[in-house]
Amino acid sequence: MIGVGVIGFGYWGPNLARNFHESGVSRLLRVCDLSKDRADLATRRYPTARVSTDPHDLLRDPQIDAVAIATPVSTHYELAMAALDAGKHVLVEKPIAASSEQAIRLIDKAAGKRLVLMVDHTFVYSGAVRKSRDLIDSGQLGTPLYFDSQRINLGLFQHDVNVVWDLAVHDLSILDSLIKLRPVRVSASGARHMLGQQENIAFLTLFFDSSFIAHINVNWLAPVKIRRSIIGGTEKMLVYDDLDVAEPVRIYDKGLQIKSGQEAVYEMLISYRWGDMWAPRVDRSEPLAVETRHFVDCINRSVDPQTDGKAGLRVVRALEAASKSLADGGRPVQIQSD
Amino acid sequence: MIGVGVIGFGYWGPNLARNFHESGVSRLLRVCDLSKDRADLATRRYPTARVSTDPHDLLRDPQIDAVAIATPVSTHYELAMAALDAGKHVLVEKPIAASSEQAIRLIDKAAGKRLVLMVDHTFVYSGAVRKSRDLIDSGQLGTPLYFDSQRINLGLFQHDVNVVWDLAVHDLSILDSLIKLRPVRVSASGARHMLGQQENIAFLTLFFDSSFIAHINVNWLAPVKIRRSIIGGTEKMLVYDDLDVAEPVRIYDKGLQIKSGQEAVYEMLISYRWGDMWAPRVDRSEPLAVETRHFVDCINRSVDPQTDGKAGLRVVRALEAASKSLADGGRPVQIQSD
Amino acid sequence: MIGVGVIGFGYWGPNLARNFHESGVSRLLRVCDLSKDRADLATRRYPTARVSTDPHDLLRDPQIDAVAIATPVSTHYELAMAALDAGKHVLVEKPIAASSEQAIRLIDKAAGKRLVLMVDHTFVYSGAVRKSRDLIDSGQLGTPLYFDSQRINLGLFQHDVNVVWDLAVHDLSILDSLIKLRPVRVSASGARHMLGQQENIAFLTLFFDSSFIAHINVNWLAPVKIRRSIIGGTEKMLVYDDLDVAEPVRIYDKGLQIKSGQEAVYEMLISYRWGDMWAPRVDRSEPLAVETRHFVDCINRSVDPQTDGKAGLRVVRALEAASKSLADGGRPVQIQSD
Amino acid sequence: MIGVGVIGFGYWGPNLARNFHESGVSRLLRVCDLSKDRADLATRRYPTARVSTDPHDLLRDPQIDAVAIATPVSTHYELAMAALDAGKHVLVEKPIAASSEQAIRLIDKAAGKRLVLMVDHTFVYSGAVRKSRDLIDSGQLGTPLYFDSQRINLGLFQHDVNVVWDLAVHDLSILDSLIKLRPVRVSASGARHMLGQQENIAFLTLFFDSSFIAHINVNWLAPVKIRRSIIGGTEKMLVYDDLDVAEPVRIYDKGLQIKSGQEAVYEMLISYRWGDMWAPRVDRSEPLAVETRHFVDCINRSVDPQTDGKAGLRVVRALEAASKSLADGGRPVQIQSD
Repeated sequence: MIGVGVIGFGYWGPNLARNFHESGVSRLLRVCDLSKDRADLATRRYPTARVSTDPHDLLRDPQIDAVAIATPVSTHYELAMAALDAGKHVLVEKPIAASSEQAIRLIDKAAGKRLVLMVDHTFVYSGAVRKSRDLIDSGQLGTPLYFDSQRINLGLFQHDVNVVWDLAVHDLSILDSLIKLRPVRVSASGARHMLGQQENIAFLTLFFDSSFIAHINVNWLAPVKIRRSIIGGTEKMLVYDDLDVAEPVRIYDKGLQIKSGQEAVYEMLISYRWGDMWAPRVDRSEPLAVETRHFVDCINRSVDPQTDGKAGLRVVRALEAASKSLADGGRPVQIQSD
Repeated sequence: MIGVGVIGFGYWGPNLARNFHESGVSRLLRVCDLSKDRADLATRRYPTARVSTDPHDLLRDPQIDAVAIATPVSTHYELAMAALDAGKHVLVEKPIAASSEQAIRLIDKAAGKRLVLMVDHTFVYSGAVRKSRDLIDSGQLGTPLYFDSQRINLGLFQHDVNVVWDLAVHDLSILDSLIKLRPVRVSASGARHMLGQQENIAFLTLFFDSSFIAHINVNWLAPVKIRRSIIGGTEKMLVYDDLDVAEPVRIYDKGLQIKSGQEAVYEMLISYRWGDMWAPRVDRSEPLAVETRHFVDCINRSVDPQTDGKAGLRVVRALEAASKSLADGGRPVQIQSD
Repeated sequence: MIGVGVIGFGYWGPNLARNFHESGVSRLLRVCDLSKDRADLATRRYPTARVSTDPHDLLRDPQIDAVAIATPVSTHYELAMAALDAGKHVLVEKPIAASSEQAIRLIDKAAGKRLVLMVDHTFVYSGAVRKSRDLIDSGQLGTPLYFDSQRINLGLFQHDVNVVWDLAVHDLSILDSLIKLRPVRVSASGARHMLGQQENIAFLTLFFDSSFIAHINVNWLAPVKIRRSIIGGTEKMLVYDDLDVAEPVRIYDKGLQIKSGQEAVYEMLISYRWGDMWAPRVDRSEPLAVETRHFVDCINRSVDPQTDGKAGLRVVRALEAASKSLADGGRPVQIQSD
Repeated sequence: MIGVGVIGFGYWGPNLARNFHESGVSRLLRVCDLSKDRADLATRRYPTARVSTDPHDLLRDPQIDAVAIATPVSTHYELAMAALDAGKHVLVEKPIAASSEQAIRLIDKAAGKRLVLMVDHTFVYSGAVRKSRDLIDSGQLGTPLYFDSQRINLGLFQHDVNVVWDLAVHDLSILDSLIKLRPVRVSASGARHMLGQQENIAFLTLFFDSSFIAHINVNWLAPVKIRRSIIGGTEKMLVYDDLDVAEPVRIYDKGLQIKSGQEAVYEMLISYRWGDMWAPRVDRSEPLAVETRHFVDCINRSVDPQTDGKAGLRVVRALEAASKSLADGGRPVQIQSD
C-alpha cells in the first residue's frame, strides 16, 4: 500500500483524495489545504487522515510515499519540486507547470532521483479516449487527417490562467495521446471580454509536418457545456463526445471519398450522413480511478507513466506557442521541440 | 405576376423553380440547363414552362422580368451581367461573384439600370435567423460578444471553389445579417487532404474594431452534418442549430457573470448549465419561399432587398481576405471596406 | 405509363399527386376535391391535369387506370367500391375502411375483377422499416420478444375517427409488416379530454399465442412529436425512431441475458447501456415514392402488393377489437381472424 | 447530530451511508450487511463506523437514533418493525413493504411509538420533480389531463420482485407526489420472457374519478435507459426526462386547443411542435442528500415526512391492484383506499 498525501482540497483535490482512499492499492494519509474551511471538510470526510494547512508538514511525513498536487498552476513547480526533493513520487494537476523551463527542471529532478513524475491529464485515462486510441492504433481509421475539438464551458471567469491554459490543455493532452505526430506550429486567436481579465475564448490551429491539422475551440463564456472531438481519417471518422453518456465514441464507416457523377453529388448534399455508424461499448470506469491506480502501479514497478513529465512538457510547449500567437492576432508561431 | 426564368437546374435550381412556380406572385416561364438530362427533368416537372440548354434564349424572352441564376460560381458574373444588360432583375446564388471587383461591377450596373440585384443568402430568410435577429435587435442578448459557427458536411469534394467559398459563405452571410459590426481583419487556417484539390477544412477568426470576435469552422470531410452557431451576449446567449427541427433557436438567460466565492465556482464547474433556457416558436416556412416572395416584392416596389448586392460584396470581401490568410498559414489579413 | 386520378387533395392527397406526377412510371391525369379552394390549388400546381369537384367525372374517364383515394375514412368504402366497379385499380389511404365487413367486401370485389387493391400503409415502405424487416427476417435479433411503440403528436382534435384509428393504425401496420405472428387479443385503455370528442389518448397491449407482446401508446395531445418503436429480441434489440434523421434505426448487440453475481448486477444498474450499438445506413427515399412505384409495378405485373387488402383487413380487425376494449376500461377482447 | 445505522450495503445502501456520513446533520455510526465482502467494503470506506453482519447488533445500539433499511423487499417489514420496536426512526427503501397489510402495521406501530416512518421514494426529492410539483401546484399547467411515464432499463433479470414492483414503484411515487388525485382502478398487462422468472415488461393504465388518466410503461429488457414522464395540462405540458442532464424539465406553452380551418390543421400536421418551450433551471443537488436531510429534519421537529408511511401505503395498494390485473390479462381492478 502506497501512502499518499493530497495537497489542495478545492475543486479537484477531493476527487484525488477519494480515489486514493478507495483504490485498494493506496492509503490516503494526509490532506493539506490553505483554507481552514476546506481543511475542515477534509477532516469530516476522512476522519482517519491527518489534515493540515501547511504542505510542509505533509512533505516531511516519512509515511508519505507519493504526493498529489491540486493547487493553482502558479504553485505547481514549487510544490512539485519540494515533493521530489523530499523523495516523494509526484502526481501534479494539469498543466504540469507554468512554463516549459519549469517542466524540464521537474523532469530532470525526477529522473535524477528515480521518482515517478506524472501529470494529471485525466481525459487520457477515460474509457472513451482509450478506446479511440485503440481504434486509431489498429489502423481502422486509416491515415488520420484532422482532429477538431470543441470544449466550451459555463461562464466562469475566476482563473489564474487564460482559457487556453485552462481548457485547451485538455484537448492538447488528448491529441498528444491519440496521435503520434507532433505539432510544429500554431496559429491562435481569441478575445478577452472582461476588463483586466485573461482571454476567455480562443481558437487554436496546430500545423504538422504533414497535411494533418488540428483545431481546438475553447470558451469559458458559453450557455451549454460542449466537449466533443472529431478525428477524421482516410477510412473512417470518429466522434468522441465526452458528455454523451450512452455513446461517447461513434465510428462512421466512410472516410475520404470522391463521388463521381452529378446525381450522386446532389444525393449527398441532401443526406445527413452516409455509411454505417458504430458505437462501441466503452469502459465507464471513472478516469481518475484508472489514473490513480496507474500512478501507484508505476511507482511499484518503477516505470514511466503514460502521461509522464515529457507529455506534460509537450503540452506546455504548445500552450506557450499558442499564447504568443494569441497575443499577435493569429500570426503562426513555432512550437519548441527537443 | 412576375415572369421568371431559372438558369441552372442542377442541385439548387429545382428549388428556385419550384418556389417561383408555387409562390402565387410569380410565374415560372423558362428553365435553362446546359445538361440535356437536367433539361428533360425540368420539362417533365413543369410541362407548361419552356426549357432550353441555351441561357440566351431565356434572356431574349420579353415575358421574362426576372432571372434566377443557380450555376457554378465562376459563371455568376457573366450570366448576371448579361441578364442585367437584357433589363432583367437578378437573383444570383451565393456567393454573388468570384471576386469583389465583379461584385462591384454588378452593383453599379444594377443601380444604373434601376434593376433589383439580390444574392441568394438563403439562411438569412429562415425563421430561425429572422427570430435571432429580432432577439439581438431588441437588445435581449445585451451587447453581442462573440459569434461561433460550425458548419460541417459529408465528405464531398467536387466543387469549383474551396470550402471557405462553399460553406463559410453561409456563416458570413448569417453574421452579416445578425450583427451590425463589420469585420476588419481575418485569420484563416486550413488544410487540403486530396492531392490537387482545394482546401476542404478551414477555420476563420474574424476580428472587429471592438472586442467582438467571430469564428467559423467549415469542413467538407466530416461524418455527420453540423450547422450550429452560438451568439454570446453580455445578458443572454443564443444557440441556433439549423438541424434541430424542434428547437432551432435556444436562448439561455445568463450572460457574462463573475462568480465570487470558491464554493460558487466549484458548483459551476460541475453544472451543465445555469439559468433558464427558452426555445421560442420559430416560423418554419421554407426560407427560399420567403426569399422568392421578398425578391418579387422588391421588384414590385422598386426597393433594395435585404440581401442586396452590397451584402453580397461584403461577404465576398471577407472570403477574399480569408483566402489570402489561408494561403499564409493564419497570418491576419485586412478585410477591404468602402 | 399508368394513368392515375387522385381523389382528395387535402393534407395527404397532394403528396400522392406529386409522387404519381414525378414517378416516371405514371401520369397524373386528374385530381378531385370537394373543396373549390383545394381544387384551385391542384389546378395551379398541375396545369396539365384535369381537376374537378366531382369524383364521378374522374371514375368515368377511360384514360384513368388507377385511383388513389385520400379522403375521410367514412368515405373510403363507397369511393373504393365505386372505383373498383368502374374497373380501376385502387390505392386507398389507411385505414382501408371503417369496418372489417367493408374491408372484406372490397377484397372480394377486387379479387373478382382482378384489380389491384392496395392500402396506403406508408411507413411500411420507409427505408427504416424495410431495413428493420430485413434484420428481423435474417434472424439477427434472435426470437422477437416484444414490440413497444410510441406515437405522439401535436394537440390536434379535428378528426373523423379517434386516436386509435388515426395513429395506432400506423403502428399496427408496421407491426404487421415486421412480425409474422398475429395478435389474438387486445387490452386497450384511454381517455377523452374534450367534451363530445373521440378518445385522444390510448394505450394498446396486444397479446399473441406466444410470450411475444406488443404495446402501442398513441396521443394527440402532446407537446412534442414522438415516433419510436423498440423491438426486443433474444439476441439483439432494435430502436426505430422515425424522427431521427441521422440514425432512424439502431441495433444494440445484446438481448436477453442473465447476469450472475451481485457486483455484475450493481454495475449494470449504473450503466446506460451495454454492448455495442450499430446504426446501419438506411435508404432515405421518400416512402410514398417507393410505395407509388410498387403500386404501379403490381398493376403492371398483376400481383398483390405488400400492403394488400388482407393486410388492411388485419389492421382494421385489431382496431375494431381495440375500440371495444377501450369502451370497456381495458377488458381484453379477442381479435377476429380468418 | 442524529446517530444513523444503515442495514444493507449492496447497491443502494452505500449511497445512503455516504449521505448520512456527509450530511453535516447526522453521523453514520453503524453499517450492517449479511455479506462479508460488502461488510469489508463498508469498513474500508468508513473506518470510523462499526460494521457487522447481524442487524440486531445495530438495533441494540443506544447511540443509534435512526435506521435506514436497504435490503430486499421481502425483508422490509420484519426489519422495519424490529427497528420501530427498538425505538428507532426508520427510513425504508421503496416499496415500503411487500403488502398493504404490512404497510398498515408499520404505520400504526410508528404512530403508536411517535417515531418517524419514511419511505425512500428518492425521485420525489429530485430537483426536477420538486420543480414539476411547484409548476403544477401554481396552476401553470392548467388542469392536469394525463401522466404518461416510461422507465426502461438494461436487461437485468435478478430481482426478488417483478418489474412493476421494481420500476413502476418509482413512477407511482412520482405521480403520487405531483398530483392530488388518487387512482381508483388499474388495467395492467405484461409478459415474462424468461422461464420461471417474474414479469419483465409491463404496462399500467390508472383510472381516476375524472377524465385524468395515467400510464406507466416499465421494462427490464431494453437496449437503452429511458426515464421520461409527460404531464399534459389544459394550458401547458411538461416533459420530465431524468436522463437529460442539461434540461430535465421542459415546459411547452400550449395545451388543449381546437384548431379551426383545414389549412391550420394541415400546418399542424407537418409541425414538430407549436408554442414556445421553456426549460427552467433545476436544482441539481443529489436527491438522496435532500431526502436524508429531510428525514433528519422530520426527526428533529417530530413531523411527518413528505413520503411518509401513508404515501408508501398508497403506492403499495396500486402495486397490488396492478399485480392482480396483470395476472388477468388487463382486466381492470379496483385500487383499495381508506
